[in-house]
Amino acid sequence: MANFISRQNFTIEWGHCDPAGIVFNSRFFEFFDRGTWGLFETALDVKAADLTAAFGIIGIPLVDAGARFLAPARFGDAVELITHVSEFRRSSFDVAHRLVVHGTLAVEGRETRVWAIRDKTDPSRIKAHPIPPDVVARFEAQPA
Amino acid sequence: MANFISRQNFTIEWGHCDPAGIVFNSRFFEFFDRGTWGLFETALDVKAADLTAAFGIIGIPLVDAGARFLAPARFGDAVELITHVSEFRRSSFDVAHRLVVHGTLAVEGRETRVWAIRDKTDPSRIKAHPIPPDVVARFEAQPA
Amino acid sequence: MANFISRQNFTIEWGHCDPAGIVFNSRFFEFFDRGTWGLFETALDVKAADLTAAFGIIGIPLVDAGARFLAPARFGDAVELITHVSEFRRSSFDVAHRLVVHGTLAVEGRETRVWAIRDKTDPSRIKAHPIPPDVVARFEAQPA
Amino acid sequence: MANFISRQNFTIEWGHCDPAGIVFNSRFFEFFDRGTWGLFETALDVKAADLTAAFGIIGIPLVDAGARFLAPARFGDAVELITHVSEFRRSSFDVAHRLVVHGTLAVEGRETRVWAIRDKTDPSRIKAHPIPPDVVARFEAQPA
Repeated sequence: MANFISRQNFTIEWGHCDPAGIVFNSRFFEFFDRGTWGLFETALDVKAADLTAAFGIIGIPLVDAGARFLAPARFGDAVELITHVSEFRRSSFDVAHRLVVHGTLAVEGRETRVWAIRDKTDPSRIKAHPIPPDVVARFEAQPA
Repeated sequence: MANFISRQNFTIEWGHCDPAGIVFNSRFFEFFDRGTWGLFETALDVKAADLTAAFGIIGIPLVDAGARFLAPARFGDAVELITHVSEFRRSSFDVAHRLVVHGTLAVEGRETRVWAIRDKTDPSRIKAHPIPPDVVARFEAQPA
Repeated sequence: MANFISRQNFTIEWGHCDPAGIVFNSRFFEFFDRGTWGLFETALDVKAADLTAAFGIIGIPLVDAGARFLAPARFGDAVELITHVSEFRRSSFDVAHRLVVHGTLAVEGRETRVWAIRDKTDPSRIKAHPIPPDVVARFEAQPA
Repeated sequence: MANFISRQNFTIEWGHCDPAGIVFNSRFFEFFDRGTWGLFETALDVKAADLTAAFGIIGIPLVDAGARFLAPARFGDAVELITHVSEFRRSSFDVAHRLVVHGTLAVEGRETRVWAIRDKTDPSRIKAHPIPPDVVARFEAQPA
């Protein structure tokens, strides 16, 4: 498990919420995506938009995602999104997200993503590629 | 397992897609939500917006959701979303979604939802309630 | 003014609506975008995703948009989106949208878009290009 | 014109962007909504979610919105959203938004909103209500 943890604080917006007055489920998956990019940006010290160029990848596409909704989040709630890589494998990794509202764990999220490059034999396709050891090492270091 | 299956056909929009040119993951959870409402509307023969009033519930809130992304969907793709209830329990149920693009299963989704009523002792809270047998029966019937 | 009119029928979803129980304003601009792509697809008889390749353009980027909100649209409402090009100019054009809910005009939208190509002298930039007369002619024809 | 100005700084997310790699237009209208709530929260010193209760209104519904798109915003761009009320009228007001990307004005937005209460004779309807002078005064004060 990686030690590096990213914390993002933001406020639930009116447009995030549905007629029940709580955050609509798809928005949490937007938050998770934001969390993952933020985590990588901070851990690797590369701007998110430059990540692909810096590491010669085409991206870190999502192959699996999930969430458990434990408590609602509402318009105006100040939330903290806590994100870390829970496991690195050869060419894929798992990201864990916890969304905390007023000190309570409201949503647990998880993503499985692939370290992906363009397939040289068929440039219209992408394929998984081994994650460089120095990338993994950056996540295992204790944040400053 | 319920027999009733809902099929919705629609087209992937420009605004559904991200800079990689494929549907951004949160959109699939919007599609799943649409699928579930459509399924309930058809199976129970009640307009989705009238579902809560017709059954004395406050809604069918999501407590768990997930997706496996097997193949991309792109702008202009004609897709079919196939939705059914995979399991009814006492007061919760699972919904399974399959998004098919050009004959290929592109995304598998699942939702766990609760049959929820307002808590009489604390109207600011909701609680799970047994699903009426006639609701379950409607899903187990073969569609006409 | 072009004669060609596109009509799209769809249903307002739960996820389109905000805590006031009505469609959140940004969703209407998603609908307008969908309307414009649908209009061009039908008028030019080219799939929306193939439009850029078919006409050698980089896209039809939006430079101005607006909406008047006259009546609300709610979850489950069956709506009709009526779209046409209200004016073609040399290299830009205006699109007008009307969203009708239960026979009432609920939202009026307008977009100004540019017929855009890649700038040959600086491929990182785009520039406006004259709209081909045969494109305009297709919109002025009466639909079959 | 009100003196009070709100400035919000945030970063463009991957999920905000479309296949052209730039922010999809509807997202700007989400940003404007966020800007207006933030402005009112700061000017009136009331949490956005408590605004309706604090002033006895049902909300500040949008009746007109528009945007001019002058320059693109891209994934990872640090943007500043500058929002102020450009005009207060008897029971409606205009909000002006400027989205600045790397020192350049990228998008100009405007919203017209109504100070709305529930109609006493028909509680299913809302109607415009005169804006209290002390509300207007708060916006005309120079921020501390």
